[in-house]
Parts: sequence; C-alpha cells; structure tokens
Amino acid sequence: MRVIVLGADGYLGWPTALHLSARGHDVVAADNLIRRRWDRQCGTESLVPIATMERRVTRWAAETGRRIEWEKLDLRKLADVTSFVAERRPDAIVHFAEQRSAPYSMISAATAVETQVNNVVGTLNLLFAMRESAPDCHLVKLGTMGEYGTPNIDIEEGFIEIEHNGRKDRLPYPKQPGSFYHLSKVHDSHNILFTCRAWGLSATDLNQGVVYGSGTPETDLHNELHTRFDYDDIWGTVLNRFCAQAAVGYPLTVYGKGGQTRGFLDIRDTVRCIELAILNPPAKGEFRVFNQFTEQFSVEELAEKVQAARQAHGLETRISHLPNPRTEMEEHYYNARHQRLIDLGLEAHKLETSLIDRVIGLVEGLRSRIKPELFVPRVDWRFGGSRVSGARPAKRRQPADRSTPTSGA
Amino acid sequence: MRVIVLGADGYLGWPTALHLSARGHDVVAADNLIRRRWDRQCGTESLVPIATMERRVTRWAAETGRRIEWEKLDLRKLADVTSFVAERRPDAIVHFAEQRSAPYSMISAATAVETQVNNVVGTLNLLFAMRESAPDCHLVKLGTMGEYGTPNIDIEEGFIEIEHNGRKDRLPYPKQPGSFYHLSKVHDSHNILFTCRAWGLSATDLNQGVVYGSGTPETDLHNELHTRFDYDDIWGTVLNRFCAQAAVGYPLTVYGKGGQTRGFLDIRDTVRCIELAILNPPAKGEFRVFNQFTEQFSVEELAEKVQAARQAHGLETRISHLPNPRTEMEEHYYNARHQRLIDLGLEAHKLETSLIDRVIGLVEGLRSRIKPELFVPRVDWRFGGSRVSGARPAKRRQPADRSTPTSGA
Repeated sequence: MRVIVLGADGYLGWPTALHLSARGHDVVAADNLIRRRWDRQCGTESLVPIATMERRVTRWAAETGRRIEWEKLDLRKLADVTSFVAERRPDAIVHFAEQRSAPYSMISAATAVETQVNNVVGTLNLLFAMRESAPDCHLVKLGTMGEYGTPNIDIEEGFIEIEHNGRKDRLPYPKQPGSFYHLSKVHDSHNILFTCRAWGLSATDLNQGVVYGSGTPETDLHNELHTRFDYDDIWGTVLNRFCAQAAVGYPLTVYGKGGQTRGFLDIRDTVRCIELAILNPPAKGEFRVFNQFTEQFSVEELAEKVQAARQAHGLETRISHLPNPRTEMEEHYYNARHQRLIDLGLEAHKLETSLIDRVIGLVEGLRSRIKPELFVPRVDWRFGGSRVSGARPAKRRQPADRSTPTSGA
Repeated sequence: MRVIVLGADGYLGWPTALHLSARGHDVVAADNLIRRRWDRQCGTESLVPIATMERRVTRWAAETGRRIEWEKLDLRKLADVTSFVAERRPDAIVHFAEQRSAPYSMISAATAVETQVNNVVGTLNLLFAMRESAPDCHLVKLGTMGEYGTPNIDIEEGFIEIEHNGRKDRLPYPKQPGSFYHLSKVHDSHNILFTCRAWGLSATDLNQGVVYGSGTPETDLHNELHTRFDYDDIWGTVLNRFCAQAAVGYPLTVYGKGGQTRGFLDIRDTVRCIELAILNPPAKGEFRVFNQFTEQFSVEELAEKVQAARQAHGLETRISHLPNPRTEMEEHYYNARHQRLIDLGLEAHKLETSLIDRVIGLVEGLRSRIKPELFVPRVDWRFGGSRVSGARPAKRRQPADRSTPTSGA
C-alpha cells in the first residue's frame, strides 16, 4: 500500500515509517522538523543521537534496499498539504504530526495556543486535502488515552451505549482531557468524526497509551536509523525518564501519590498497531476508535517495577515523591478497554523485567549524556513554566486548598 | 456589577450591553468589528441599518444618561486582551466574540480554519488573561444547542449521569456538533471546563438555541440603537429569514424534509438569560452549563406558524422544500432539558402569532431593502461554498447515496 507518514521525524513516526517500509509498503515520510527546534527552545535533547532525515532514508536504502521518500512539509500550510496529497494519492495517511507534549502545552498562553493551532489546523488542512483529492484514503490519526481522563466508569473504545430515561443511543465517549495538548486531540477527534459523517471520509483514531522503549528491530539496524529517546520533563515519557534517572543514581521522581493509572505500550507494539489499522481499514464514512495500549499500571507500580528490575542486578534504586506539578486525580478508578487491536491480531510485548532491562541497558550505555537537571519538572499546571526559555511567567497565585508546588525539589 | 461584553457589535452582543446597562450594571463593550467586514466579504447586509459603535454609545448616553464604555479589541491578540482585562477588573465577562455562522465555517478550508482559530484562540487568550488578573471573574460564554447534535436520548444541561457496567459517573454530555462552527464551540467548552478544574476559574456555558426577533425595548428606543437583523443564507437565523421571505412573496425555504427540530428563543429572552447568569454566579472553580432556549419546534412547524400568522391577516404564504445543503438528520428524536434558567426566574416570551407578527411587521416596513438573491443557500456542507466571494471551490464529488444538491433552486 502507498502510505504517507506525517510526523516521520518523531519518536514514533520514524520507527513507523521504517516498519511499514520493511513490511513492503510504499512509504512517503513527511515532517516539518519543528520537534528539533522545540528541543533547542526547551533546552532538551534526545539521549540517543539522531541523524538527519536525509541520512536516515539514505542509510535505510543502503541497509535494506528499500526506498522511503522524504519530504519536508508543514501541515499548517494548506496549499502545500493540498498539492502533497493530490500528488501522492495515498491509500493511507498515518498522522503523527502534532505537538505531543502536555507540559509544553502548559508553559504559557503562547504554547497553549501554538499547540492547539498547530494540531487543529494541521489536521483540518489534511481533512480538506483528503476531501479534495483522496476521499477514499484511510486516515490513521494518533490520539491519546489522555483524551478520556479518569472517569469513574469503564473506558470504552471511542463510543459508549447510553441508556437514559428509557431511551438508548451509542454516543461518542465523554472526554475529560487534562492539558491543552490533550484537549487539542479531543478537538481533532471531534473534527475528524464530523468529516467522516459529512464527507464520507474514513478514519481510525488511535487513542494511544504512554509509549516506552528505545526502538524497534528496524531502528536497531544502524546508529543512523535510531529514533529519539526523551527523558526530560517536557518530552520524556514516564518509564523512559525513570530509566534515565536510575542510570545516574537519581531517585525515580513520582509526581504526587503515584496512584495515577494509565495505559502503556512498547514502542514495538505502536508500529505493529499502525500496520494492523492500515491492513484492516474502516468502511467508507466510518470513524472508528481503537484504544492502543497493552497494559495498565499506576505510576507508583511502574517505579516499583524499575526498582525490582535493578534490584535483580544488585542495583539500588530510590523512589521519591514530588509535589505534583499537574492537576490530576492521584487515586482513582481506571479500567480501559483495549480489545479491538487484539481482535485484529496484536500480540503484545509485556513490560517484563527483561524489557525494562533492555531500556535500562541502552540508557546505561549513554549515561554520560544524561543531564539530571532535565529531570526537574519546570512546568506547573496552575502557573505555567516560567523557567522554560522564552516562556512568559504567570503570577503565582496560591489556591487555598493546594500545597505549594516545589518544582525545584 | 462591572461587566465586559465581548462581541458587543453583534446581533445579540449589542442588545445585551444595552440591557445590562439599563439594569444598572457598569458595562464595557468591546468588539473587533470583524462582523461588518464579513458582511462585505459575503455580500450580505443587515436588513435593519445599524449605527457605528461610537454613535450607538453616544445615543445611549443621550437617551438614558447611562454610560457604556466602548473599546475596539481583538481577542486574538494576547497582549491586548491581557492588559484589557487587567485594567478593567470585571466581575463578569460575557463572551459573544466569535464567528457564529455555520454556513460561513463550511465555505472552505480557509473559513473553517478561520472560524476555529478565531474562536478557540480568542477564548484561550481570554482564559489566560483571567488567570493572570481576574481569577474570580465569572465567565459567561455563549455556546450553542448545536453542540449536542440530535442524539436519540434526552439532552441534559451539559452533564449526564451514566451508569455503565455497574458503576456510575457524572460526565460531560457527549457532543455531536454539525459544522466547523459548532465544533469550535465544543472545543471552547472543553477548554473552559479544563481551566475551571485546573485553575479554579468559574464559568457558565450558555448553550443557546436559535434566536429570533428584531430587538429589545432598549434597542427600540432610537434608530441609532437598533441591532442588526440578518435574513440571508450565511448569517440569517431561520425564523428571521422566513419572515423576510414572506414579506417579499418568496416561498419559505425549508431545507430537506423540515423535521429538523431545534430549540428557539426570543432575543428579549437572550438578554434576560445573560443577566440571570450574571446575578447568580457559579461557585469558584465551577463549570456549569445552561441550555438557553424556551421552546422547541421543527423547521416545518416554524414555517407553518409563519404561514398561519400571515393567513390571519389574509396574506398567502407558500412553503417550498429545498434539497438540504447541510448534512443533518431530517427526522429524529429531540427532547432537550432547559430548566436551569427557568429555576433562576426566566419568564419566557412565547413564539405566538403576535410575536411572529411583530417581526413580520418590522420586516414589511423594510421590504424595499430585502434582496431575495440572499435567500438562496450558497454553501453546501459536502462541497463548500464556491459562490461566496473569495472562496476556493472544492471539486464536487457525488456520494452515491445522496441526491444532487441544487443550491441554485
């Protein structure tokens, strides 16, 4: 199949492009490379050095004989998106091309607006381009489990049957997103669902859990094929950050009580899920939602798993609790369905000790590149992130019922 | 109370500013005047001539001795919004300042993006300005009943208690908005709810029905105090358009079968609802939703009511059905709760024959200004609005299961 991967320079976009190419699909990789700029802006850096997109696709061809077409593309530019889609005529478009950090979106009004405009406008432009020249193309859109928040009932996959006052309907599952980033994904989901109904487009919204892991068999082939690995406060996902903290003898920093429960998955399963979605497209006009994760844990459980994995090798690990910079429930019910990808054949990697070891192993080897100052949360959900460069500080008002955030801890 | 009215140049914003001023509140009226520009862009014009904002506030002071402060303000400019809110220190902010036409939002990618960016970014900037310098101010935000769509269960006021697999929660009511405009309001609602939870802001989201009517006792005081009256395909609401059509002997144009049922209210009730919300603010950190309409009718019923009102005066009226330019259900269940404003004391005007007469009367007097060519729907939900000036035409692809839209009918 002819597949466009948008956001192909990212942590997951790049391994997805490689996986689809390795599986014989005809892949076009596009990105505006803004993630590398955001790194400079935030003073962050991938632990694993990454090559330019040009070197990556050249290396991939040299290693495998397979060609990935690379194009720099900014989804915010309607005319560029329109002609790009019209020229490529894809069977599927995998859309990772969004600002994907919750803390980044909470730094300031400017980054909140940037996040929502970037994500919402990019997706809108793409939908219009599809209407115009690829109405039968399957849009595979990356959403997030964070769109649902933490309701006190089971989380379903996108829709829920509600019985109310003696009548029934199947309605979009109510969303309670917890940051301007998560909100942007909810906005996207609503926009896409509408275009499926109004224009007959077809889409799969993949509400993905928190991804961990250092790469895939394809990224492991050569160091110029590596994907980024973020461990900092802005871009790092929690398990990756814990492994980096452990490697330099820093305590694993759990935000608040650590009872926050989320869905997780291995990066090797992300790329498989994407292909499963592509190989099993929705009906014309259908908007379907898969919850894309394999296991659910609390943050505290995750920290304890890292601790146990290290203990097995005689390594000591401390766990420390920081005042939570986010506003979120720290103890709550959580039970999210994630059946539809399994029904399509997903065989999940489990977050076993061996897997944590694999990440810990990679991180240990790059220990000298770790900057512990990047572990410290600089963005507070209530006040923003005045210590991120370029951010405009908000006045720190103290809600009566909350403890002082001590993000410098 | 000190109240800012944003979008004070609009059909409802201006009467609201007057009503609040008449009721003794200290009113600051702000607007970026873009609605007048959109009129020029779309070739549309208010049936009722309207004065400039400067003349309006001068006339109001002359007629009543009350002062309304007028300021030109663009919510998309963060620095301006921030200093505006910081200087005024309002008790309440009434936020009408959005692109509010569904057809406008469906013209093209450009107008869809303009609508969502204008509405979402304006509201985000306002929320950040409130966090910084008016965290106890009450935001009264205009939403729309169209956020809910037409579910097959009763529509509640913003939240619904769901029992699922033996557990219960009160969750945001699932939304099924039917245009990029309606979607923008859903995005706003999610953003505002989040800031109430995360920052402790307080907000009332008024999900308003379709408004009809030519003015209020305050706008009737002098012709320089009149508010706009739109009857065209882009900005006109359905009852106002029907009355204009009837006045020039044009058939009332019902889109599709006419079974589309919606909530309606008199413009004189809109301004009362706003004051009721202001006088009864939510708790700190509360996000509440009122469904702001007084009666529900199908579009066909509405046409028949206009027909009957005219028949009582010996005037004949034809009703014609156009192919529906929108994608929406034309026969559906509809039962929406609207109790909370009544509980606060709203005594509703009813859409009786006399009321329709009142609008018909106004329109008859301005009959010579009516341009029948503005009745014709130029925007199709599937293909956009190539005949609106400046719009980029979409290719007209024909879905197999739909009849050809004949928007030129």
